[in-house]
Amino acid sequence: MLKAEYRQRGPVPQDVIEAVAFEKPKLNQGEVLIELLAAPINPSDVLTLTGEYGMLPPLPAVGGNEGVGKIVELGPGVNAPAIGQTVLLPVGCGTWRTHLVAQADKLVPLPNEADPKQLSMVSINPPTASLLLSEFVELKPGDWVIQNAANSGVGSYLIQLAKIRGLKTVNIVRRESLIATLKEEGADVVLVDGEDLAARVKEATGGAPIPLGIDAVGDTATGRIADCLAEGATLVNYGMMSGKPCKVSPASLIFRGMTLKGFWLAKWFENASPEEQMAVYGELTKLIACGKLKAPIDSVFSVKEIKHAVALAAGGKRNGKVLVTA
Amino acid sequence: MLKAEYRQRGPVPQDVIEAVAFEKPKLNQGEVLIELLAAPINPSDVLTLTGEYGMLPPLPAVGGNEGVGKIVELGPGVNAPAIGQTVLLPVGCGTWRTHLVAQADKLVPLPNEADPKQLSMVSINPPTASLLLSEFVELKPGDWVIQNAANSGVGSYLIQLAKIRGLKTVNIVRRESLIATLKEEGADVVLVDGEDLAARVKEATGGAPIPLGIDAVGDTATGRIADCLAEGATLVNYGMMSGKPCKVSPASLIFRGMTLKGFWLAKWFENASPEEQMAVYGELTKLIACGKLKAPIDSVFSVKEIKHAVALAAGGKRNGKVLVTA
Repeated sequence: MLKAEYRQRGPVPQDVIEAVAFEKPKLNQGEVLIELLAAPINPSDVLTLTGEYGMLPPLPAVGGNEGVGKIVELGPGVNAPAIGQTVLLPVGCGTWRTHLVAQADKLVPLPNEADPKQLSMVSINPPTASLLLSEFVELKPGDWVIQNAANSGVGSYLIQLAKIRGLKTVNIVRRESLIATLKEEGADVVLVDGEDLAARVKEATGGAPIPLGIDAVGDTATGRIADCLAEGATLVNYGMMSGKPCKVSPASLIFRGMTLKGFWLAKWFENASPEEQMAVYGELTKLIACGKLKAPIDSVFSVKEIKHAVALAAGGKRNGKVLVTA
Repeated sequence: MLKAEYRQRGPVPQDVIEAVAFEKPKLNQGEVLIELLAAPINPSDVLTLTGEYGMLPPLPAVGGNEGVGKIVELGPGVNAPAIGQTVLLPVGCGTWRTHLVAQADKLVPLPNEADPKQLSMVSINPPTASLLLSEFVELKPGDWVIQNAANSGVGSYLIQLAKIRGLKTVNIVRRESLIATLKEEGADVVLVDGEDLAARVKEATGGAPIPLGIDAVGDTATGRIADCLAEGATLVNYGMMSGKPCKVSPASLIFRGMTLKGFWLAKWFENASPEEQMAVYGELTKLIACGKLKAPIDSVFSVKEIKHAVALAAGGKRNGKVLVTA
């Protein structure tokens, strides 16, 4: 049994994490042993390794915040879930590990027939995309939304969810080669970022007002999204792929009445009622299980290959999510 | 009779404006002739000359957006205001002129015994300061507010209004030499801007949470104010003295839940009811007339010296407002 552990944080994330062997733990009353099926490496996981994230676990820690596994052994007094049942791993438990012990009665069972790789990504990116579309501006079918980093995990889910809700999306990417893929996912407009972005967006949308902008990049990219927005619009930042502050002109804020806010799923969790959380996750799990919502996967690595997996996830050159499996 | 006119906009504001003679106009039914007592040169006036402001009048135009004058001649059918009465000039009429014709029944009379120089600044900076304190965050006595450009016109009014309302202010300036003056105006804390600002603010306030930040500078100064704010705070930008975009970290927005907004008095005017406007201006006029609210004045120029006046107002080296008089 292996776990991907880090004992310190540092600027090169693959340098601080390593696969460490551990003994098969003894199961106590009410516990089960789960074998990992799949766990993604999210941008927030990389920022947790480098120490740049807003919430850092005490050290040493095991990487990974979400994933799915299957029950492989039942401890004393446990009748369910059955051996072989697919279950959601508890969020934040350190999911990059071949095996995990958990309390049986806390586990959420998932459909065994659904693709566990797709299900493994349900807890973080899909609710982020869903809530970015619902928490800030009241949108109605036909309304436009613009986002950058449109080929990210969140970006891809956002395109698909917007399509399901009848919204139209302008998607900004850095490479021409991504355009076709995003259009297949349901993107209405895909444009390569650049100085004349606002003019090209206006042309592509026929000048339709865009009340919601979504930024995961920061730096001047934030300002270029701001320049595309309607008067009184809201711009939401949820990531910092550039590693630099968001730059927006006072003209956008003062003369065009824009509001700039941030979104953090962890904070939403703190404030949302269990019913609100269930509503969001219930819808997303169903959509993923039936194949209506999915994310591109670049590659899958075993826990013992964790350094390669993290290096690839942290670099810019991938076409989809990097997953970890047992 | 002279008016300060510009026929084009350009990067050096004193180059585009000049004093131009005009004939004494004939007064029509219901009109009066007003002689200028005082009109300030506000930062927004300078940005209007350079073309950087959010609302630009058609050319040619007369500079200046606010001021006070006294009635010197009554046209046919006019009984009031009386000759010698101090009146508020209509906002946006082009106030840098020795004389102005106006409809008598549209004029707001002001107390003749009050200082016309102080009254001339009532229309723009004081309501901006007042509304920055009231429109964004519900503050109660004892709450802290932080602002930069604290020695500006708005900054000075904000210090005084905050004091009157029982609020505490942290005031950020660029020069040590300004500290004593601002403390005399009622500032609780005055600090010189710099990289370690957040730590120094924390020390000066005993770590009290600051729910409202006010930025008139942009660039990295915006981010330094952001770093001083409490979780869930609002940061309002109303100016761009640096000429550069506002820079705020995604960490402030995402992890600390900050909202960045803009404030524009012209937009507030569009949306506020006449009653709301009267309430704000009534209070401010009273406070200015009785000397409880005042702004430092650097110097007073006649209309024929407009180029010198604008050059001084546009430069960084002044200690108060530059005014124009007949």
